[in-house]
Amino acid sequence: VSDSEFDIIQRWFARDQEHRDGLLLGVGDDAAVLECRGRIAVCVDTLVADVHFPASAPADAIGHRALAVNLSDIAAMAARPRWCTLTLTMPQADEGWLDSFTEAFFALAREHGTRLVGGDLSRGPLSVTVQVIGEVGENWLRRSGARPGDDIYITGTPGDSAAGLAVMRDGTADKSAAHAALVARFLRPVPRVQEGLALAGLASSAIDVSDGLLADLGHICNASGCAAVVDVEQLPLSESLLSVCGTDAARQHALAGGDDYELCFTASPERAAEIEQALAALSTPVQRIGEIQSGSGVVATLAGKAFEPPIRGYTHF
Amino acid sequence: VSDSEFDIIQRWFARDQEHRDGLLLGVGDDAAVLECRGRIAVCVDTLVADVHFPASAPADAIGHRALAVNLSDIAAMAARPRWCTLTLTMPQADEGWLDSFTEAFFALAREHGTRLVGGDLSRGPLSVTVQVIGEVGENWLRRSGARPGDDIYITGTPGDSAAGLAVMRDGTADKSAAHAALVARFLRPVPRVQEGLALAGLASSAIDVSDGLLADLGHICNASGCAAVVDVEQLPLSESLLSVCGTDAARQHALAGGDDYELCFTASPERAAEIEQALAALSTPVQRIGEIQSGSGVVATLAGKAFEPPIRGYTHF
Repeated sequence: VSDSEFDIIQRWFARDQEHRDGLLLGVGDDAAVLECRGRIAVCVDTLVADVHFPASAPADAIGHRALAVNLSDIAAMAARPRWCTLTLTMPQADEGWLDSFTEAFFALAREHGTRLVGGDLSRGPLSVTVQVIGEVGENWLRRSGARPGDDIYITGTPGDSAAGLAVMRDGTADKSAAHAALVARFLRPVPRVQEGLALAGLASSAIDVSDGLLADLGHICNASGCAAVVDVEQLPLSESLLSVCGTDAARQHALAGGDDYELCFTASPERAAEIEQALAALSTPVQRIGEIQSGSGVVATLAGKAFEPPIRGYTHF
Repeated sequence: VSDSEFDIIQRWFARDQEHRDGLLLGVGDDAAVLECRGRIAVCVDTLVADVHFPASAPADAIGHRALAVNLSDIAAMAARPRWCTLTLTMPQADEGWLDSFTEAFFALAREHGTRLVGGDLSRGPLSVTVQVIGEVGENWLRRSGARPGDDIYITGTPGDSAAGLAVMRDGTADKSAAHAALVARFLRPVPRVQEGLALAGLASSAIDVSDGLLADLGHICNASGCAAVVDVEQLPLSESLLSVCGTDAARQHALAGGDDYELCFTASPERAAEIEQALAALSTPVQRIGEIQSGSGVVATLAGKAFEPPIRGYTHF
């Protein structure tokens, strides 16, 4: 990108650079300088073309997703996103692509009060790395706090995203509202930032579902030194998912499909009413789907019997 | 990397994770949690194989460089590096490669008191993105503080790295000490972290030389709204560089070669004695090479006449 790197930065990336809200120096120097008090949460995720997304995916979906997956990690810590950096490697600078990419990226950033403070542009195979810095209070969440007896919850309706990817991949996507809804869940995941903040002090552990519900719940169990039992009948399945897939495949997607970016969390049963109230205030559906037990591993049960989905986790799209 | 991502992280990347020095939660959760007081500087750089380095470069040189170029940005802010994240995209997980890469990366991190707190592994074309978070005091440096009348300085001996790359590229590298010294300057650049900290409150502006001395001095002039005149006869040229290249090519490399990672900075003439003292205390050579003037643009002069190097800036290796 070399020659025109500075022009590209000025035209597409040097937005929202006013020196307020703790931004002392933004895009354009050797580093950004930020005012921060207390504790910060830092996460980073790379999306590689044809590994995490098809290189032909719409540029706005890539721009949205690159930030959304990181905001989702921040959400799982009960952190408030403040700043982000973006490194973009691309084969060439295509104006239309950059327009769409940055429009979607900055729209999501503004929605969550997150400012782009730095980055790097390179020529090379398409790949996007975003890092988000958030502020955390006293009651930030981690994976390691689940205890036997805790309830297991999931926000929203898991499985939609995996089903959306499936219909995109096998070319069966039609113009129906159900297909459109599933594909949108895949292309434009919604990070549960406000929900994460609302769960600070209520949840005992949390993770965002990127690898698949059972796989990510397994990370909580590993970190917490305990086991989990998920009741398949309690899985909150969307009407779109059920109408497109039927019950069996819907359950498979919900348990093992990745890219939901819903929050999976645990909490003491004493917190049930507060949790319901906190998420109702955000109009976010939440469902108790199982229980933490002593031991290790994650099992799903249906009508009292073990239920093993054919595949436990998808690789990312 | 999917299946074995967690194993790879545990084996090669989950080092120095003790919860001390402000690290409240490190590698292995959705985000790291860090205690920070005051102001932070944040920078990020991506190295793409066959754009910024040959894919066949030694793994230890890639690991060293990926962190060094970011520490160099942090140095140019007069910041103290504290934490970093690393995202590594690679075609496959090669044990020997990972051994060398991480050994060099962590050695440099330890040398500068910088801890790896998070990251991401992906399968794909080789590429490394590192972000460093540093702490800054009151007198952090930026590009925009140069004023007419200020002296222009450079640390070390610019041009060595570009000459090292040149002999590597054209296959003329021999076993001589001079060639070895130049190649080492290219493969293992030394970030001027302590020097940057020593210049806080003394320099009026600073940048690290990655694109080439004239090009990077141009960034200072653009940001500061002034012009620069560099006296070619004052350029501090190493004996290795002169013996390998002769004077003309040595000057070309020093003015336009990239990847030096020396600090170019400006300061009021009143600060000259303090600057000399501060860098002498670190045994770091520093040389006054010119003057900031009113106007715009950067010129090099030799014996009173304009001296234009054939090329003003290399693309990165």
